[in-house]
Amino acid sequence: MIKKIGVLTSGGDAPGMNAAIRAAVRTAVTDGLEVFGIHRGYSGLLDEDFTSMDYSSVGGIMERGGTILRSSRCEEFRLEEGRAKAADILKKHGIDGLLVIGGEGSLSGAKLLMEEQGIPVVGLPGTIDNDIALTDMCIGVDTCLNTCVDTIQKLKDTASSHERAFVVEVMGRSSGYVALASGMAVGAEAIIIPEIPVNYEEIADKIWRERKRGKINCIIVVAEGASSAYTVARHVEHRIGYETRITILGHIQRGGSPTAFDRVLASRMGYASVKALEENEAGTMIALQGGKMVRVSLEKILSQKKTIDMELVEMAKILS
Amino acid sequence: MIKKIGVLTSGGDAPGMNAAIRAAVRTAVTDGLEVFGIHRGYSGLLDEDFTSMDYSSVGGIMERGGTILRSSRCEEFRLEEGRAKAADILKKHGIDGLLVIGGEGSLSGAKLLMEEQGIPVVGLPGTIDNDIALTDMCIGVDTCLNTCVDTIQKLKDTASSHERAFVVEVMGRSSGYVALASGMAVGAEAIIIPEIPVNYEEIADKIWRERKRGKINCIIVVAEGASSAYTVARHVEHRIGYETRITILGHIQRGGSPTAFDRVLASRMGYASVKALEENEAGTMIALQGGKMVRVSLEKILSQKKTIDMELVEMAKILS
Amino acid sequence: MIKKIGVLTSGGDAPGMNAAIRAAVRTAVTDGLEVFGIHRGYSGLLDEDFTSMDYSSVGGIMERGGTILRSSRCEEFRLEEGRAKAADILKKHGIDGLLVIGGEGSLSGAKLLMEEQGIPVVGLPGTIDNDIALTDMCIGVDTCLNTCVDTIQKLKDTASSHERAFVVEVMGRSSGYVALASGMAVGAEAIIIPEIPVNYEEIADKIWRERKRGKINCIIVVAEGASSAYTVARHVEHRIGYETRITILGHIQRGGSPTAFDRVLASRMGYASVKALEENEAGTMIALQGGKMVRVSLEKILSQKKTIDMELVEMAKILS
Amino acid sequence: MIKKIGVLTSGGDAPGMNAAIRAAVRTAVTDGLEVFGIHRGYSGLLDEDFTSMDYSSVGGIMERGGTILRSSRCEEFRLEEGRAKAADILKKHGIDGLLVIGGEGSLSGAKLLMEEQGIPVVGLPGTIDNDIALTDMCIGVDTCLNTCVDTIQKLKDTASSHERAFVVEVMGRSSGYVALASGMAVGAEAIIIPEIPVNYEEIADKIWRERKRGKINCIIVVAEGASSAYTVARHVEHRIGYETRITILGHIQRGGSPTAFDRVLASRMGYASVKALEENEAGTMIALQGGKMVRVSLEKILSQKKTIDMELVEMAKILS
Repeated sequence: MIKKIGVLTSGGDAPGMNAAIRAAVRTAVTDGLEVFGIHRGYSGLLDEDFTSMDYSSVGGIMERGGTILRSSRCEEFRLEEGRAKAADILKKHGIDGLLVIGGEGSLSGAKLLMEEQGIPVVGLPGTIDNDIALTDMCIGVDTCLNTCVDTIQKLKDTASSHERAFVVEVMGRSSGYVALASGMAVGAEAIIIPEIPVNYEEIADKIWRERKRGKINCIIVVAEGASSAYTVARHVEHRIGYETRITILGHIQRGGSPTAFDRVLASRMGYASVKALEENEAGTMIALQGGKMVRVSLEKILSQKKTIDMELVEMAKILS
Repeated sequence: MIKKIGVLTSGGDAPGMNAAIRAAVRTAVTDGLEVFGIHRGYSGLLDEDFTSMDYSSVGGIMERGGTILRSSRCEEFRLEEGRAKAADILKKHGIDGLLVIGGEGSLSGAKLLMEEQGIPVVGLPGTIDNDIALTDMCIGVDTCLNTCVDTIQKLKDTASSHERAFVVEVMGRSSGYVALASGMAVGAEAIIIPEIPVNYEEIADKIWRERKRGKINCIIVVAEGASSAYTVARHVEHRIGYETRITILGHIQRGGSPTAFDRVLASRMGYASVKALEENEAGTMIALQGGKMVRVSLEKILSQKKTIDMELVEMAKILS
Repeated sequence: MIKKIGVLTSGGDAPGMNAAIRAAVRTAVTDGLEVFGIHRGYSGLLDEDFTSMDYSSVGGIMERGGTILRSSRCEEFRLEEGRAKAADILKKHGIDGLLVIGGEGSLSGAKLLMEEQGIPVVGLPGTIDNDIALTDMCIGVDTCLNTCVDTIQKLKDTASSHERAFVVEVMGRSSGYVALASGMAVGAEAIIIPEIPVNYEEIADKIWRERKRGKINCIIVVAEGASSAYTVARHVEHRIGYETRITILGHIQRGGSPTAFDRVLASRMGYASVKALEENEAGTMIALQGGKMVRVSLEKILSQKKTIDMELVEMAKILS
Repeated sequence: MIKKIGVLTSGGDAPGMNAAIRAAVRTAVTDGLEVFGIHRGYSGLLDEDFTSMDYSSVGGIMERGGTILRSSRCEEFRLEEGRAKAADILKKHGIDGLLVIGGEGSLSGAKLLMEEQGIPVVGLPGTIDNDIALTDMCIGVDTCLNTCVDTIQKLKDTASSHERAFVVEVMGRSSGYVALASGMAVGAEAIIIPEIPVNYEEIADKIWRERKRGKINCIIVVAEGASSAYTVARHVEHRIGYETRITILGHIQRGGSPTAFDRVLASRMGYASVKALEENEAGTMIALQGGKMVRVSLEKILSQKKTIDMELVEMAKILS
């Protein structure tokens, strides 16, 4: 039976991570477990940068973006020696279960820590890219989408006032989810995602048609993994001679107070992750499937690629 | 085969209705259908207050709250004569399919219009209460939740500064969804919903314990269908002598530019509703189930009551 | 020469109070002074609820609404004995200068503490009502206005969708500033303020004319000190039979992260207040006049009534 | 006596321009004048792209960013022939007074149109840079500041989570106002503006000291006219080996629904500009001085440079 658990956040920060930490800590404390917060992800684990947490340590944090436990990327943990050292440290402190909140890289590390070193881990998908398979949504995605939508809406004011095209580059190295959903939500004239080869001819034709129909602004959303805003703008200007501006949303997509959805999702995942550890279901990640919290093996999740809904892609073309 | 459709919004307005109208109109136009917008819900239908809509009529509306088609409640349509007259008018204009965006009452009317008068209808769930069975979410709920969360967060500033309790009354005549989700998202000390009998003793005990633990603010969220903010405040003050303030969020919960989620949800529902009409699946409502758009018979939906997730209720108690 | 100062917030909280505290503490520390934070206003002063503050104690607070020093209203301090006791406590702790951030009542208390008990005080105007004479703006007013505008804008969505009138009650017991400025900013059809007798006939006429001109919504903003939303709604409904809804913004006007304006204003005032104490200009309040920070005697400020700009009142009538 | 006026927006768009247009149109109509809206600034003037405007043409626009009259930069108008042609067109249409809303370049054009061609013009300062002399604020600045503050606040979440420095580039080619005010409002560790030579040594020292004091994030705000974010980041990384990220806010600073302040300011300026034309005070710009609307000759305004408040600069260093 588990008595003491550790919780860490790793990789890029995502809004809602604090709600997950809060839920995990309070659920664990309610069930009589001891909880250690591990600072700065796997780096802090290797540095023994731990802090004992109780009910009050997580008060007033749900509404804050980022992660109070901080995060980092850690080279040493990528090596087996690093993970062995981590396991020793955890054992030394009597930590018999670990919660890891992060993206694909962080969850891969967690999986190896369990397979190689026997540390029971449960993962929580925390990444604004929504590129983790088998969960409908990751912690932080909904907030990121709303930041994208609010920001692009501001660009539309200027685009309309000056009759310009804007190319907006959003997050998404391997997944076009953020680009697709935010593009749909602002009625973008074109959306360029890594899952589908870009067809500049088709985009130029569409913008041309819209222009003739009297539309005075034009928004093109591009996922960073598909192309760069500069390349897209060059192609568009070259083909249709439309004055084009570029905006790279960058890090502002990571921040901000989490939305209601992310707070509730993260709270549910934090709660469910402790239950999974307690019920000896380590080696899993908590996923949202059809509105429910489920446990899916890390193995399965990490061997699959998140796919994009092709019907949404078609719909986006018809609606804008 | 359907050639001409009508679309109307009915009952209380909800953010995202415009995105649904936009998607329905553009999908229909793309498929070669004619579209009539019907103003002011069933009232406008009976007054023949119609407007022909094309691709451009729905430009720039997605980001706006409310409904450009306006809405109303209509007594005449509650009677069979009213609905017979409505059917005659629709036939006169050659409208052979009707999309109805609204809450339970509006969908009941739509169902009768089809059963009695043979008009093919497809419903879309548009109500901030989230009280329609068999769909995970209704259009407008996510925006409403975020408005609640943003607003209650402001109250927490004052609650902390003055060490007070706030009782906040939110939407939800028959369903406690908005209260439960927004209450969880702000870490409310107590959440009172119509689905569960209120226990003031337990609430008072909890607030008392939190106080002693050093918490300097206290938020109680109550669904309007469960109790009134006044009653709750009286009970709390009576039991623990805590200075209590009341806020009734009221109509501000209905408005505002829709969130990314509501824009995408409403767009998908608008698109799917036209497809349902085209594929002779009238008599249904478009529902979100496990991330997918599905068609569920109006009959089935209207004969069931939306239930609340009891695990969420328990979780909320543990986490705050 | 002053060596040790105290700072407190009193009365209703206002966004930006934390920025003022931050600026005062850091300015004082930079100048080599010791600073005590006094909790819960004059109550905490009488309870000796003090905390020593340095540069770091005020980190990360500028963006937060409310006041980290908390606030309260204090009966005991209204009596001369209370103030004598307060002076003794301050002397006992070696505090030779006091900063008081608050509204008219709080500043009156500060003035008496100086006149009767010889404690050097400097006031900062912190109240969302903007009812303090001789300063263009008080800390918190700009944030309050933006909250009012954002909220009323949401009501307009619903008002337009349902062709209704909304009566919105905002802060302002003795001053109509918030009602006037927010009413102008949302294009309200009528604005009712305590400085000017209400003329329901004129309001009804105006709404009637707008209606006939095709306007489908109507917003009436009323300052709480002029009338109640209920009374106004009854009058309007009675005269023109327009369906009317009521919203009382209440405490949400107090909260929220301060705007850029309030953060800069409060920072400047916090800085200037310490300089005033250091330069032996106690007995004054820091005021904003024509973009500059000036010191005005508390005597002068408290003997005058804030007036409303009648040209703005006329303009508001023409523009909506 | 003036009977017919034209209004145009020129140069970069700024939030609040619509409120100014609305106020100008409604004031003019109330006073019995005819009003022409001129599309796309001086370009539209030369193209005779006019539209007759009345009370209703400006309904529902106050809350929208950008400018419904659109804007552009116009080469032809920079030449005397262009301006002579413009004057002919205005005379042909019987327009005997022109309102120009825009920045320094646009106002220079307006001044020449009056001096050379005898067209009565009144200017309104509309630019988010706040770089126009003799007015405390320009239309759009306050909204821009709040967008900067909200956005930088999001970066702070990530900066804290990853213990990084962020260099944020904001608007301000010749004026550091936006950088200074937004930097103060977010508590930036360093603010780099064109008015003051940058001292990288001093900045590096400060960041170093803060780090040692335990501060886990660092924000440097730079005005585009002072340096580029890249250059600043290179200097900082070089000197203190701190991991640094870059964000260029760019066009999102232009957009968004205007704040309460900008709506009221623009309304007052729109109103005052019509009154100035009516009272034969053309050749002036409406300015905000010490809370009042005043008329200042364009000559005077354009011959001076906006200065920065050096006390604010010093204060910013002490407070962060």
